[in-house]
Amino acid sequence: MANHQREIEVSGHIVDSMILAKVFDAVMDMGGEFEVLEIDVGRRKKDKSHARLMVSAKTQAKLERILEAIYRYGATSKEINDAKTRPAPRDMVMPADFYSTTNNKTQVRVGGAWVDVANPMMDKCIVLKGRRATCVPIRNVRRGDRIVVGESGVQITPLERPREGVNVFEFMGNSSSSERPTRHIARHIAADILEIKKRRGKIVLVGGPAIVHTGAADSVAYLVRAGLIDAVLAGNALAVHDIEYATMGTSLGMNVRDGTLAVRGHRNHMDAINSVFAAGSFARMVASKKLKRGIVYECVKKGVPLVLASSIRDDGPLPGVITDVMEAQRQYRKALEGADMVLMVSTMLHSIATGNMLPANVKVVVIDINQPTVTKLMDRGTWQALGIVTDVGAFLPLVAGEIKRIR
Amino acid sequence: MANHQREIEVSGHIVDSMILAKVFDAVMDMGGEFEVLEIDVGRRKKDKSHARLMVSAKTQAKLERILEAIYRYGATSKEINDAKTRPAPRDMVMPADFYSTTNNKTQVRVGGAWVDVANPMMDKCIVLKGRRATCVPIRNVRRGDRIVVGESGVQITPLERPREGVNVFEFMGNSSSSERPTRHIARHIAADILEIKKRRGKIVLVGGPAIVHTGAADSVAYLVRAGLIDAVLAGNALAVHDIEYATMGTSLGMNVRDGTLAVRGHRNHMDAINSVFAAGSFARMVASKKLKRGIVYECVKKGVPLVLASSIRDDGPLPGVITDVMEAQRQYRKALEGADMVLMVSTMLHSIATGNMLPANVKVVVIDINQPTVTKLMDRGTWQALGIVTDVGAFLPLVAGEIKRIR
Amino acid sequence: MANHQREIEVSGHIVDSMILAKVFDAVMDMGGEFEVLEIDVGRRKKDKSHARLMVSAKTQAKLERILEAIYRYGATSKEINDAKTRPAPRDMVMPADFYSTTNNKTQVRVGGAWVDVANPMMDKCIVLKGRRATCVPIRNVRRGDRIVVGESGVQITPLERPREGVNVFEFMGNSSSSERPTRHIARHIAADILEIKKRRGKIVLVGGPAIVHTGAADSVAYLVRAGLIDAVLAGNALAVHDIEYATMGTSLGMNVRDGTLAVRGHRNHMDAINSVFAAGSFARMVASKKLKRGIVYECVKKGVPLVLASSIRDDGPLPGVITDVMEAQRQYRKALEGADMVLMVSTMLHSIATGNMLPANVKVVVIDINQPTVTKLMDRGTWQALGIVTDVGAFLPLVAGEIKRIR
Amino acid sequence: MANHQREIEVSGHIVDSMILAKVFDAVMDMGGEFEVLEIDVGRRKKDKSHARLMVSAKTQAKLERILEAIYRYGATSKEINDAKTRPAPRDMVMPADFYSTTNNKTQVRVGGAWVDVANPMMDKCIVLKGRRATCVPIRNVRRGDRIVVGESGVQITPLERPREGVNVFEFMGNSSSSERPTRHIARHIAADILEIKKRRGKIVLVGGPAIVHTGAADSVAYLVRAGLIDAVLAGNALAVHDIEYATMGTSLGMNVRDGTLAVRGHRNHMDAINSVFAAGSFARMVASKKLKRGIVYECVKKGVPLVLASSIRDDGPLPGVITDVMEAQRQYRKALEGADMVLMVSTMLHSIATGNMLPANVKVVVIDINQPTVTKLMDRGTWQALGIVTDVGAFLPLVAGEIKRIR
Repeated sequence: MANHQREIEVSGHIVDSMILAKVFDAVMDMGGEFEVLEIDVGRRKKDKSHARLMVSAKTQAKLERILEAIYRYGATSKEINDAKTRPAPRDMVMPADFYSTTNNKTQVRVGGAWVDVANPMMDKCIVLKGRRATCVPIRNVRRGDRIVVGESGVQITPLERPREGVNVFEFMGNSSSSERPTRHIARHIAADILEIKKRRGKIVLVGGPAIVHTGAADSVAYLVRAGLIDAVLAGNALAVHDIEYATMGTSLGMNVRDGTLAVRGHRNHMDAINSVFAAGSFARMVASKKLKRGIVYECVKKGVPLVLASSIRDDGPLPGVITDVMEAQRQYRKALEGADMVLMVSTMLHSIATGNMLPANVKVVVIDINQPTVTKLMDRGTWQALGIVTDVGAFLPLVAGEIKRIR
Repeated sequence: MANHQREIEVSGHIVDSMILAKVFDAVMDMGGEFEVLEIDVGRRKKDKSHARLMVSAKTQAKLERILEAIYRYGATSKEINDAKTRPAPRDMVMPADFYSTTNNKTQVRVGGAWVDVANPMMDKCIVLKGRRATCVPIRNVRRGDRIVVGESGVQITPLERPREGVNVFEFMGNSSSSERPTRHIARHIAADILEIKKRRGKIVLVGGPAIVHTGAADSVAYLVRAGLIDAVLAGNALAVHDIEYATMGTSLGMNVRDGTLAVRGHRNHMDAINSVFAAGSFARMVASKKLKRGIVYECVKKGVPLVLASSIRDDGPLPGVITDVMEAQRQYRKALEGADMVLMVSTMLHSIATGNMLPANVKVVVIDINQPTVTKLMDRGTWQALGIVTDVGAFLPLVAGEIKRIR
Repeated sequence: MANHQREIEVSGHIVDSMILAKVFDAVMDMGGEFEVLEIDVGRRKKDKSHARLMVSAKTQAKLERILEAIYRYGATSKEINDAKTRPAPRDMVMPADFYSTTNNKTQVRVGGAWVDVANPMMDKCIVLKGRRATCVPIRNVRRGDRIVVGESGVQITPLERPREGVNVFEFMGNSSSSERPTRHIARHIAADILEIKKRRGKIVLVGGPAIVHTGAADSVAYLVRAGLIDAVLAGNALAVHDIEYATMGTSLGMNVRDGTLAVRGHRNHMDAINSVFAAGSFARMVASKKLKRGIVYECVKKGVPLVLASSIRDDGPLPGVITDVMEAQRQYRKALEGADMVLMVSTMLHSIATGNMLPANVKVVVIDINQPTVTKLMDRGTWQALGIVTDVGAFLPLVAGEIKRIR
Repeated sequence: MANHQREIEVSGHIVDSMILAKVFDAVMDMGGEFEVLEIDVGRRKKDKSHARLMVSAKTQAKLERILEAIYRYGATSKEINDAKTRPAPRDMVMPADFYSTTNNKTQVRVGGAWVDVANPMMDKCIVLKGRRATCVPIRNVRRGDRIVVGESGVQITPLERPREGVNVFEFMGNSSSSERPTRHIARHIAADILEIKKRRGKIVLVGGPAIVHTGAADSVAYLVRAGLIDAVLAGNALAVHDIEYATMGTSLGMNVRDGTLAVRGHRNHMDAINSVFAAGSFARMVASKKLKRGIVYECVKKGVPLVLASSIRDDGPLPGVITDVMEAQRQYRKALEGADMVLMVSTMLHSIATGNMLPANVKVVVIDINQPTVTKLMDRGTWQALGIVTDVGAFLPLVAGEIKRIR
């Protein structure tokens, strides 16, 4: 009955990375059948495994859908054709059958050879220019662009579970919990940061205003000053809070040193905003010595890119905050290029934005006091991520303290 | 010792609205003293009370700060002067001592008379043009604008606790809880909506994509179709989810009718986005019958403003989504003008944005499954607000069902 | 080097249930090595797979530990010996090397044959009496009991992922989320309940007082009256709230019909307790018509076991509430014997207690508004579980309504 | 019309403690009316205020209910009679109209004089023996006990908001938040603890097993060793985790020093339990040097009462854990007598139990990572409480570190 069939292959750490199991599942869940033609499991832990399966389904359409699903897990067809393309009918419009990307390493078959897709991100399309393949967001599609359609001629290398090593990602697995030994996690994060910087890696911090409000701004400022952070991605609020704290010692009118409410403190938030408008820019505020400490200050001094994306809830927003969302996305993407590690601290909005732009192999640490926020970010991420449900105001100083101790 | 003093007055429901207590507190907390010169408490519940106090402090500066604080609770000085103004030194720069607004009813003294400030919002400044006073965001300040400075000549009428009545706000108080009889709250919300529309009031819904994902999109679409919603404020995601659901039955690839994962469902999200780009706009998609149901559809059909503000995490965003944040704020503000009730459903970002724009007397209902989100919104709000920690997918259908039953 | 080795086998759905992957992982994580001697993967979805591995380690002690770990995943040694036992040295004391149980189906080798262990539960020991093997809690251990020690001669059959079917567990997987189509999940739960009762299965409800407070008591009372619930496990508070609601219409003084506070309502809680003490028992209160509705009433009328375990925060507690915790555990265990499905609603304490007593193959539905509670229960459970983050006051009426509609 | 009336008085800090406002509210909410006959507001902050009101209602029954409500806020009638009593009809049964207590300071009128009620707790009754009045739980009521009924002759002194001072309770107010400067709160808690111990006050810690799991056990052990904790109230789990950690370095099999999973760690939990059964008691385990560190160890060494209440989810429970809930309540109550401060850390169950036993004037600090838990405890408490949403594993070491620094 099931007379439409195709031979496919999978290889790599397909057993312990669950890839083979997922392929079996997908075929069965979608009403297909499979025969294992050959399976060669690595005899020792460093060996790769390899399997050949015959997948079959009752109709050709069904078979196509099954293949599409399992190609996403890294399966490849024995009969490989070049990727097919169709021209974009108009600016910002993709052909109906466009290939929708994942953030895994992706290759397309062009002229009989596999070509890497540059800059893999989630939910984009692939544009071919000659033999160059690029991952492109829909708003950047131009009429006539050759867009990959269908699933054949596209090959994915899913993230394999790391096997051995010393960093915190490996002993924790892809999970989150509020019941972990906090200080020891902080120690591991500190060690990881130093190890990455030692080999000249790139670390990006994405942060929200709770960093300032909970009293962790000094720790972040230290990380920037120490040259451990290569870019800070945030929104308007982080900068406003940081400048209020740096110039007046308060965060939304609360004295951060002791938690009391400052006299006339309700004005401080708007005062901070006004002081930046009066200076004209962060750089001039620093130059004129009106801003002498804090996260913004250290970024200016150190030349660390501080990319601030505006959102609709912003007061102000400050000069320098990017009010066009498309432009903000471009600058975030640029700042994230080549990142080895991203620390996402107390901001759902900017963390999701960042996550959408990251390839699967970047290490991500999500830190927030609210468990559903951590869970939501971990669920979306298809990266190698570690979720920590903790109090930012206690945790970041532990990380910073540990780094000071080691260096 | 405390020889700097000023006589002030408070009147209204100052005892049961806690206003008198707050004034006493503020004076004492800031190191001042007071004498009660006269107090006249309303003898029956509808009577207003009135009190005269002599406030004193050791220095004039201290006294000024105390006065500033208590003026914010509605106290007024016996010696009233006109409000002082200073010109804005540059575009987008306020004079240093600018008066920072609340969202309460606010009046300024101009030429010996009290003038209402138009459009009261939190954390803005007041610009005088002749005898007209307007609440203005910092980015709209133009060089030379006459901006109110200091606190004298400004008078606030704080929101008084409602006393009697039938609506849900009055029996609940300003609080939130997950331990309330859910169906009965739904019934009250339904009655409130109908009562407001009966007297031709304006109701605005602010919503996030969880509305679609939890299966409540049909209920919201019904409310729009029934003419009960006067504007929908949201982001890109609500519209994308709604269109995916309306055209393919899925939300992020999950079949909303039964929670199963759709075959090839991972593409549906991007497919929905592409379909709107292909049509060119929501209106054309409706006109060409490619979109035949859902929240976006009903808004288009009914001519209900659907204001979509982009944020940095957006995929697409869809045509019609406002990518400039400043413009989005303008359009939100316009849609909110004259609103009597705002329903904030499952979106922290757009709810905070909306809250920043609302005068204190608008009724706000905050609905979310995550208690910290509800708590955070309630803490920010100085409006008359009701927080409901519930499952949107179960709650909105209860509200819609109740409305269908009553009408 | 690694010259200590043992040949082991695994069979069943070892690829798609991840069992093989877990075995590989465990060996490698613990510093051992393996060779795949033979692997025979089922060619079609109903076929079982089978693998033979040679596991090796540097020391015999290391090897033993590795074997112990992988036996827990269902691996078995080719060389099978009878289980070893040692006598308990004293009452309530196990020999040092006691075998600590899981809640999976467990067998021990006695006289060359495999014997099922009765009543498998987590974290207990196994006592052999002749050829009978029983899972026994530490407090029930008697001096001289023959207690299984070490890991050899013990075999586990881990829960295999269900493959095909119609019930809600299969389309959901082992997960929890607040972003699901609520009404459709309610529909599935309703269908599952009816299907289980149709085949004369046993359903147990574990519940907390939020059932009453959120207005879902009538729905639970209906489920009991309809004969769909075979036992109710709870604490003192559920019963007190239920009786307060049944006799006075309030829950902690709040009128459940409309959420208002009852006059003198603060006394109602203690009044409810006093009324049961005055009657002497639930049964007499029903007999004397002082209790005419509610969950307790329906349990009494229907003869459904209502097992109430006291805890230290109890007011009263009511007559009939078991104040000795050991006795309460015994009665919970008895009520749970043979259960096919357990609904855990809004109570962390009693749900964890119940979970500790359940074999792995029981279907468990966890319902709570607080995501961390659901996450915590799901993390502990090694059963087949479905977590639903929802508002009980809206969800249970949906389930009850659906059941009424179908029957 | 409203011709049933009574003259009442209120005095104290009735304006700034909101007492007068609550009285006005109650009268109006319950359909009564009032006239202010006289009001004398303190002219300076240390002066007390005084008011006389005539309260009226349409029926005598309505008036009685209103009076009952406002007496609870501290109002007193001008016509004072002795408290009425009725004998308990049977053991554990109160007369129908029993007076239900609050945890405020309470006095009853006996023979024309006011007598303090010993040991005020929530939701109990008052038993008179001669001129002695005691707060008694329902299970301790004996047939014939003279139980106070109705509301007349009972007078309450509500907790007044503290006015001035240096401790953390005063700058924070009765609230909770995750957005506070964490380290500074830790510093204040540390100072508060030291200040209380300096004046020979009593501090009780109520704690859950997350203390061990998050790595804060050493900090708590330090506080006990340093003589700063006068009693530890907990359940079985805290002790089991503590002993597992003290003897094997793990918590539920996870190495607390680095978060890795211990080899064979799944047995450690049951091993710890078995080791205490084998020793016979905590004391013998310490004496035989099998237990050499940790919270339990320090309590034994220091003679600090460690009261462990069993609950139905317990494994074991350990010898010494009280399995009868009534006995556990008695011992908790005894340990709490005369407490000046109670730290409630990561346990909802034992914290609620403790809260039910505390008079209103005890300082309570609630520490938990889950905001709804903190909110729930704060909502129940009518004590002077501070809620801190933080990560226990980071916060307690900060408190302990600060104390070490200061001493």
